[in-house]
Amino acid sequence: MSEKDKYLMRGVSSGKEEVHAAVKKLEDDLFPRAFCKIQKDPGMDSRYLVLHADGAGTKSALAYAYWKETGDLSVWKGIATDAMVMNTDDMMCTGISNRFFVSSTIGRNKQLISGDVIAALIEGNTLFAEKMKKYGVDVQLCGGETADVGDLVRTIIVDATALGYLNEAEIISNEKIEAGDLIVGFSSYGQCEWEDTYNSGIGSNGLSSARHDIFSKDIAFKYPESFDPTIEKYAYIGKHKLTDASPIENVDMGKLVLSPTRTYLPFVKKVFDAMRPDIKGMIHCTGGGQFKTFNYIKNLHVLKSDFLAVPPLFTTIMKDTGTKPEEMYRTFNMGHRLEMYVGDMQTANTIINMAQNMGIEAKVIGQCLPFNGRKVELDTPYGKFEKIEN
Amino acid sequence: MSEKDKYLMRGVSSGKEEVHAAVKKLEDDLFPRAFCKIQKDPGMDSRYLVLHADGAGTKSALAYAYWKETGDLSVWKGIATDAMVMNTDDMMCTGISNRFFVSSTIGRNKQLISGDVIAALIEGNTLFAEKMKKYGVDVQLCGGETADVGDLVRTIIVDATALGYLNEAEIISNEKIEAGDLIVGFSSYGQCEWEDTYNSGIGSNGLSSARHDIFSKDIAFKYPESFDPTIEKYAYIGKHKLTDASPIENVDMGKLVLSPTRTYLPFVKKVFDAMRPDIKGMIHCTGGGQFKTFNYIKNLHVLKSDFLAVPPLFTTIMKDTGTKPEEMYRTFNMGHRLEMYVGDMQTANTIINMAQNMGIEAKVIGQCLPFNGRKVELDTPYGKFEKIEN
Repeated sequence: MSEKDKYLMRGVSSGKEEVHAAVKKLEDDLFPRAFCKIQKDPGMDSRYLVLHADGAGTKSALAYAYWKETGDLSVWKGIATDAMVMNTDDMMCTGISNRFFVSSTIGRNKQLISGDVIAALIEGNTLFAEKMKKYGVDVQLCGGETADVGDLVRTIIVDATALGYLNEAEIISNEKIEAGDLIVGFSSYGQCEWEDTYNSGIGSNGLSSARHDIFSKDIAFKYPESFDPTIEKYAYIGKHKLTDASPIENVDMGKLVLSPTRTYLPFVKKVFDAMRPDIKGMIHCTGGGQFKTFNYIKNLHVLKSDFLAVPPLFTTIMKDTGTKPEEMYRTFNMGHRLEMYVGDMQTANTIINMAQNMGIEAKVIGQCLPFNGRKVELDTPYGKFEKIEN
Repeated sequence: MSEKDKYLMRGVSSGKEEVHAAVKKLEDDLFPRAFCKIQKDPGMDSRYLVLHADGAGTKSALAYAYWKETGDLSVWKGIATDAMVMNTDDMMCTGISNRFFVSSTIGRNKQLISGDVIAALIEGNTLFAEKMKKYGVDVQLCGGETADVGDLVRTIIVDATALGYLNEAEIISNEKIEAGDLIVGFSSYGQCEWEDTYNSGIGSNGLSSARHDIFSKDIAFKYPESFDPTIEKYAYIGKHKLTDASPIENVDMGKLVLSPTRTYLPFVKKVFDAMRPDIKGMIHCTGGGQFKTFNYIKNLHVLKSDFLAVPPLFTTIMKDTGTKPEEMYRTFNMGHRLEMYVGDMQTANTIINMAQNMGIEAKVIGQCLPFNGRKVELDTPYGKFEKIEN
């Protein structure tokens, strides 16, 4: 069975073409290449707003299995962070680094998910907001909706919708990216200043397949509610138990894969405060992995040729599952989930230093070249892969 | 088995006490008795914002069964309306009747839910926005997130998060409600000016149980994906098929229960434009039914004694299922889903006329009396029921 077939059997596709086709007719973007839809604020002339939705996805099914297996409620705080950061860090790429309003949408099966899980999710949001406050990033929690919908949801689904504001001059629309620009990548893994433990860097993408490729059948037997029964044949076909040792000391495989998505907010706020006009574009490499960039460029060849070291979790996934490297780069961020586009090496070095001072590995990972059409080329340790449109 | 046990077995509770307990510590409301949380706008001094989340709940499981049974995609447009109106009409009770921004959050099982369902949901949102535009109500669709999460979601879950704005003078905080006020109820059923067919009035509440009480076991056999397998014994234990005739001519039982939630927006916008200062309070009788009011009063006895006629769907549910009347009034709106609090009969008559001119039945359904504590008393054709706190 091919990679693609395995993905389709599991009811996921990294590209979501079908959904994009259905959504297309809604698109009348003021800033068509901005990372999120930016709209006029109805009350103020030069102000814009971003209302954005995303969630922790199927990572919560893994959190469920881990919680049932170990009793460790802390994984739910991580899931809250995942749903939060998938929103805030998308919005950050349009230029917002402060004054977020976040509403949670949680659907649970009350038969399986107790009140202390909901409490842990709320605590996760509160802890995130408190941590960000220390860095001058204000995140207001607006409550939201927690619905008991066991007839719809097997275990629990955790989504969030966030609101943020931009003045016209603050907008990063990716329109300024041009040939000659340098691309700086910022590590998704390791342990940065505001993280309590090692972060594997996986974020909240690719979990629908990674879970099943990494972890073993005993999870399917013990927790059949943690996957779609129609994909049973392809569910949990990996070799690890949740509590197996991982390549990282003192972190088991379950916790490694459940690492909460790193937020880049404290670092990016610092960059915006110091040198916002120098940032020509920003991409959050989430769904679509290192090819995500393709959606936001025009008449450009993006060449990424000097990646950060591939973090241990991704090499483990690749080795254990036999997933082809190209598919890995299309599904996972493979080391950096944020990239900034800047005009010269001096600017690049300044922001690299700022990141490293906060514990985030960073380097120039590529450059922009002239091209008639769109091209993203990845020159990786495992070969060259590209996406091209003339 | 008692009513309460049956509800608990199905993993629902009309009161959601457990969730409220977990959410409680987030509450630091500027307007604690307003129908939605109202926050300061970060950019303008006298402006406030409401960011609100809600959804169609388990009504989408019924839409799924009906769509599979009949091939009728239009029920999904109704589900989009449900998720929309559960937000807009909640927010309307704080004083917002225009300039909504709405983001959708949809989680689907791609194995079961095809792209044409997503397209129908989006079309439902677009049609709603177009219809509202004719009445001067601007609803901006902001896209949102559609995730393929079959490991979490049996069929499809449809939620929305909406944003709206208020100037200080526009806020309806329910603080002005006082002894002596009259309560005007506005029908949730019938066919008003902007509705294409008869509306049963059920809205999007109580469906987790009503579905199972009304419809018969063959749905469980044919569409086991439309309910939680752990509640199988209590699933679809009613006597109707989806396509059985209903008490309403040319509307089958499935479509009757799937009636899209009525929005009151065009009418309420007219009221606000003409006489906003005369509206002392507004309650959207959703989850909690006719007792919902209890959460928004202080030192008051709310006596509802002259209800609109109970619509046919609710008498059918009561008759067919043997649900006790008190539970019916606690779960369903029983005839009016919107109530306004006004100071005198002349104001009441003016807004009653405005509603009736738009095809919404309306009348004074009760009054406010002095009380040391909180009391909601329902004097219904089926007996007196009350909720009281001294």
